[in-house]
Amino acid sequence: MKRVITITREFGSGGRTIAKELANRLGWEYYDYSLIAKIAAQSGYAPEYIERHGEDITSWNMWNMGFFSLSDSLFLAQRKVILDLAEKGNCVIVGRCADYILEDRTDVLNVFIYADEAWKKDRIKTIYGENEKDFDRRFKEKNKKRASYYKYYTGHSWGRAWYYDLCLKTSSLGIEETVNILQSVIVS
Amino acid sequence: MKRVITITREFGSGGRTIAKELANRLGWEYYDYSLIAKIAAQSGYAPEYIERHGEDITSWNMWNMGFFSLSDSLFLAQRKVILDLAEKGNCVIVGRCADYILEDRTDVLNVFIYADEAWKKDRIKTIYGENEKDFDRRFKEKNKKRASYYKYYTGHSWGRAWYYDLCLKTSSLGIEETVNILQSVIVS
Repeated sequence: MKRVITITREFGSGGRTIAKELANRLGWEYYDYSLIAKIAAQSGYAPEYIERHGEDITSWNMWNMGFFSLSDSLFLAQRKVILDLAEKGNCVIVGRCADYILEDRTDVLNVFIYADEAWKKDRIKTIYGENEKDFDRRFKEKNKKRASYYKYYTGHSWGRAWYYDLCLKTSSLGIEETVNILQSVIVS
Repeated sequence: MKRVITITREFGSGGRTIAKELANRLGWEYYDYSLIAKIAAQSGYAPEYIERHGEDITSWNMWNMGFFSLSDSLFLAQRKVILDLAEKGNCVIVGRCADYILEDRTDVLNVFIYADEAWKKDRIKTIYGENEKDFDRRFKEKNKKRASYYKYYTGHSWGRAWYYDLCLKTSSLGIEETVNILQSVIVS
């Protein structure tokens, strides 16, 4: 019986929208930005700092092996909040290596959400109306940083199927169908 | 509208069982061993040779770059049969890099089926009753060869999510639920 869903997602893939809608349908809690408030309250970090660095790792921190960095400290604060939330159950947690942090639990469904490059870019432009010039750089950087953060703290390669129970490509399946699949896995 | 499903699967994951049941439910053709007879008829290779080498690549062939090998010739024969079958549509094709061979078609759903190591081993032992001594070696070799073959002819890493529309872990979802998910994607 699964009581927690973790969503690891590419920037632009619609993973957050899926997580929100899924939580809504199941009547479960949904944690993404709301996680930031909880981490802030427990750790003393400013919400802005958490939002900016909670899933990014700077190149300085990446090569700062053997030293305990601010990034490590934030990771540990996030870890504690995620462990507590999973203990309560009935929640969908987006990002922040939650799949790895909860790997010892048997009641967690781990999902990877991804999409074709062109589809992700189109989606972001439609939602945020990015201007063309900065967009490509920011898009590439954001996904790269997310993958690097994941690799650094989990040792796992982003998007390697074995770390997840399901990997779903939203550019093929669509947002609605992806939510349907995940809902059916939980309620069946 | 999807008219073809390709199933890339780990040895022991239940991918073949899933493909068969899915084809049965959809009323589609199912090609695995039956593909061998077609390849034999069109190419002149003996069915036994195709079964043995149709998804394996020997280390000699792997390093034999630049020379056209028997393995390459068999791959091309398989490729032609798979392209013809996809053109007819309404079929489930197991293995043989069908996802890569059909990458230019938009009516193909590509699926990767995998499972935890212990689950796969248990499943194979239950079905084939392997003796413990040879088993571990054969199990490891079979999955390694399949991944090497795939990498050699597609250039893609086995199990990297982006190459598939769905990746489903049978040790988490079960065979039945996995078939349900794929059926719902096609009929929805």
